[in-house]
Amino acid sequence: MADNDSLSEFLASAVDAARKAGDIIRKGFYETKHVQHKGQVDLVTETDKACEELIFKHLKHLYPTHKFIGEETTAALGTTELTDEPTWIVDPVDGTTNFVHGYPFVCVSIGLTIGKIPTVGVVYNPIIEELFTAIRGKGAFLNGNPIKVSAQTELITSLLGTEAPTQRDKLSVDGCTNRINNMLSKVRSLRMSGSCALNLCGIACGRLDVCFELGFGGPWDVAAGAVIIREAGGVVFDLF
Amino acid sequence: MADNDSLSEFLASAVDAARKAGDIIRKGFYETKHVQHKGQVDLVTETDKACEELIFKHLKHLYPTHKFIGEETTAALGTTELTDEPTWIVDPVDGTTNFVHGYPFVCVSIGLTIGKIPTVGVVYNPIIEELFTAIRGKGAFLNGNPIKVSAQTELITSLLGTEAPTQRDKLSVDGCTNRINNMLSKVRSLRMSGSCALNLCGIACGRLDVCFELGFGGPWDVAAGAVIIREAGGVVFDLF
Repeated sequence: MADNDSLSEFLASAVDAARKAGDIIRKGFYETKHVQHKGQVDLVTETDKACEELIFKHLKHLYPTHKFIGEETTAALGTTELTDEPTWIVDPVDGTTNFVHGYPFVCVSIGLTIGKIPTVGVVYNPIIEELFTAIRGKGAFLNGNPIKVSAQTELITSLLGTEAPTQRDKLSVDGCTNRINNMLSKVRSLRMSGSCALNLCGIACGRLDVCFELGFGGPWDVAAGAVIIREAGGVVFDLF
Repeated sequence: MADNDSLSEFLASAVDAARKAGDIIRKGFYETKHVQHKGQVDLVTETDKACEELIFKHLKHLYPTHKFIGEETTAALGTTELTDEPTWIVDPVDGTTNFVHGYPFVCVSIGLTIGKIPTVGVVYNPIIEELFTAIRGKGAFLNGNPIKVSAQTELITSLLGTEAPTQRDKLSVDGCTNRINNMLSKVRSLRMSGSCALNLCGIACGRLDVCFELGFGGPWDVAAGAVIIREAGGVVFDLF
C-alpha cells in the first residue's frame, strides 16, 4: 500500500497531467474540429488521442513501473487486465459528443487504482474550470474546497442524472425510455449532461442526488469518479 | 418603432439589470437556501422574488411608461395581456430547480417586445459567466462575441435538447418518454439542462442543433431566447 506522501504526489502528478490535457481540450473546444466517426453516435477526435498520449507520457515518465489503461489505447490494442499493481485508468476526453458540439460538459478523468481499489481521482472540466479531486481516506474537493454529497433522503425531492444509451437498437432505446418513464413520477427532475464522469462529480458535490448509467464506455469513465463520490460520503455500486 | 439608439440603450439597461440580479443568484447558489414549495416539482426561492423586484425596479425607473410581465408577478397577480407597447418579459431565475440543487444551468432572462415582436434579449448565467444578448436586426452575441446556430443539416448528427415535463401525471410522463423514444434513434444524443432559456441560447450558439419543449413555464422562458436564436440565424416556432 502506498503511503500518504506517495498518494499526495500521485494526485499532484495527475492534476498536472489533467491541466495540460485541459489546455488542449479548451483550445479544441473553441476551434473547428476534425472529427472521425467510430460509429453512429461514437465520436473520436484528434484531441482525444493527443490528450491520452500526453497524460500517459507525463505519468509514465514519473512512474515507469505503474500500469496504464486508457480509452484510446484499449480501443486500439484491446483490453488490459486490471491487476493489484498501481494502475492509472484514464479517459482523456469524457463527453466527446459534447466536445464535438461545443456543449460545456467536457472533462479529463484520471483515476489510480491500487490493489484494484480506486485510490486517487481527478476529474477536470477545463471549459467551466472545475477541478474535482480525491485521495482515498482524505476527502473530496472541488477547486480545493471540500465537497460532500447532498443530504436528500427522499427520492421525490431528488434530482436524477442519467444518459441516453450510445447503442440505438430498439432494445436499448426502449430500456432507456422505460426506465425514464418509471423514474419521472418518483423524482423531482431529470438531467442529462452527456458526461458520465461529470455526473459522478455532480453526485459528489450534491448537484445531483442520484445517478444511474447503463452501458457507459468503460472503467475510464468511473475510476476517478468512484473515489471522488466515496470520499464525498456517497455510494457507488455496479448493478451487474 | 424604437430607433437603434433606443434599442441599444434598452439592451444596456437590461444587461445592467441582469448582472445585478446575477450577483444575487450567484450568492444564493453557493449558500444554504430557504426554499418554499409551490408544488411537488415547482420551487420558488427568495432569490426568485428578490431578483424580479430588482429587475422591475431598475427598468421601471428608466422606462416608466413601459409594460412589465414577470413570472413571479404573474403568479401573484394573474396574467397580464401582451399589447403593442414596449413590454419587458422577465424570468428572474430560469432553472429554479437547478438553483435549488446547485446545478450550474441557471440564468436571468429579460426580453423586450415591441409591437408584440421580441426585439431585445438578454440571458445571463452568472454561475459559468455567460451573457447572451441580441437586438432584432443586429445579431446575437455571447460575452460580446458574435454567435450563430450550427450548420447541421442532418438530424442523425444533431444534438437534441429537451426537458422532462413539470407535470407528472401519466399522460404528460408517457407523452414525454414516447417523444424521447421516437427521437433517440434519429439524433446523435439528448441533453436535458433544466433551463429553457439556456436551451434556446444553446441553439443560438450551436451547442445544440435542435430543441423542443412542451409545457414550459410561460413567455418569460422564451421572450429573450427567441430574439437571440433568430439573430443567430435560427428558427423558433410554436407547435400549437
